[in-house]
Amino acid sequence: MEDSPQRAVQGLGSFPWYVGGTQVLGLACVVITGVWMGSYHGGYAWDGSGQEFNVHPLCMVLGLVFLYGDAILVYRVFRNESKRNVKILHAVLHLLALIISIVGIVAVFDFHNHNKIPNMYSLHSWCGMLTFVLFCVQWLMGLGFFLFPGTLMALRSWYLPLHVFFGLAMLAMSLATCLLGISEKLFFSIQDTYSQFVPEGILGNMLGLLLVAFGILVGYVVTREDFRRPPHPEEEALSVHFKTLTEGGGSPTSP
Amino acid sequence: MEDSPQRAVQGLGSFPWYVGGTQVLGLACVVITGVWMGSYHGGYAWDGSGQEFNVHPLCMVLGLVFLYGDAILVYRVFRNESKRNVKILHAVLHLLALIISIVGIVAVFDFHNHNKIPNMYSLHSWCGMLTFVLFCVQWLMGLGFFLFPGTLMALRSWYLPLHVFFGLAMLAMSLATCLLGISEKLFFSIQDTYSQFVPEGILGNMLGLLLVAFGILVGYVVTREDFRRPPHPEEEALSVHFKTLTEGGGSPTSP
Repeated sequence: MEDSPQRAVQGLGSFPWYVGGTQVLGLACVVITGVWMGSYHGGYAWDGSGQEFNVHPLCMVLGLVFLYGDAILVYRVFRNESKRNVKILHAVLHLLALIISIVGIVAVFDFHNHNKIPNMYSLHSWCGMLTFVLFCVQWLMGLGFFLFPGTLMALRSWYLPLHVFFGLAMLAMSLATCLLGISEKLFFSIQDTYSQFVPEGILGNMLGLLLVAFGILVGYVVTREDFRRPPHPEEEALSVHFKTLTEGGGSPTSP
Repeated sequence: MEDSPQRAVQGLGSFPWYVGGTQVLGLACVVITGVWMGSYHGGYAWDGSGQEFNVHPLCMVLGLVFLYGDAILVYRVFRNESKRNVKILHAVLHLLALIISIVGIVAVFDFHNHNKIPNMYSLHSWCGMLTFVLFCVQWLMGLGFFLFPGTLMALRSWYLPLHVFFGLAMLAMSLATCLLGISEKLFFSIQDTYSQFVPEGILGNMLGLLLVAFGILVGYVVTREDFRRPPHPEEEALSVHFKTLTEGGGSPTSP
């Protein structure tokens, strides 16, 4: 759906509030995870103890939720920057998310191995590993298709809608994995008192709802038609050229 | 993005396979849930026992996953039926989903109350209740906006993208709630043996991955541009009329 300039301007009036909302929610999720592990579970260390486990949730929420969400949002926030710079920022934020999530995954495997706890048996671990592997594949494919200069426009255009769809689907999978992780942690830590509405249980549940709210708001900002990046002259030229080649339409370089 | 007829026809060649895939995955989820509760937890009853609890997962997966997903898909599957009939089918499938999910929710509350187990303390219950309440609100708003004949086209057009976005977001929330429910059930039932990769644990985890696959495939079919419902003459007339009124574009009656 193409929007008139009038409607586009109307829509953009609320845009900063929505983006601000994502940042408040995302930071709240990171801070609450940090405080939860810090206050209720003794803080952070890298010595095979429970404090090493605590690195895991903090890194995953920071990497595969907050930075992942922000990496998706850059195409909407930096709407008037050059596409190339925004692509590089998108890739760098995802690379940061990838590095931080690797630290988080190593932390939990190291904690399990030190304490002779089996790895990879729970639904949380299966969903998390699937999400992480797909995230790595998508990052590498994004690099090859969109930043490698030799890739054919036809290939970019074929991959773009898949990249956008799976980007959002994986954010949803990442959030679902976080919810599973919160639930698992609460059942391991406070199984006997969880049903009495103790503060830690309510904190974990609230964190879960905030993660859901973050995902919904990021998804809304990214998919709302009048928040889309406006076509820029040089991208339009590429787009028209491409349209002639394929007899398809739209703007294949604009996610 | 408007697609050329050539591209639209190319895309539709694979359409039945994708829809078939959603049905195979959705039915597999329902059957596996039924077999899990039937074989490992003693089947079904309505007497306050554990067998009454078993009604809960089966109803929720049947109602708020399979029927919900199919209700969303009808706009793609019945692409050449009249919009009014498809709308009614969409509303009826959602009503069935609503009734079956109410049975499922009553079952778990009744089981808890009979066995003096507190209600609504877990993240699963918080996410599930939020999803159910939003689902009811969305069903009522859908009825008022799209089936009540007196609703202004401008209001319909304002609400349509929100209805579509929240429809998919709530399917994701419903699936995430199912994953939480599977994880909770496994920790309650086989906490001591879950880490030894026992059959029930693997069955529950596989069910979780199948639910994720169902959600991704439904989401893909519904959002893929060349699977969209083609504009029909009478809807086009409405659309053009509407375009003139608002100076917006697209087809406000085509989700």
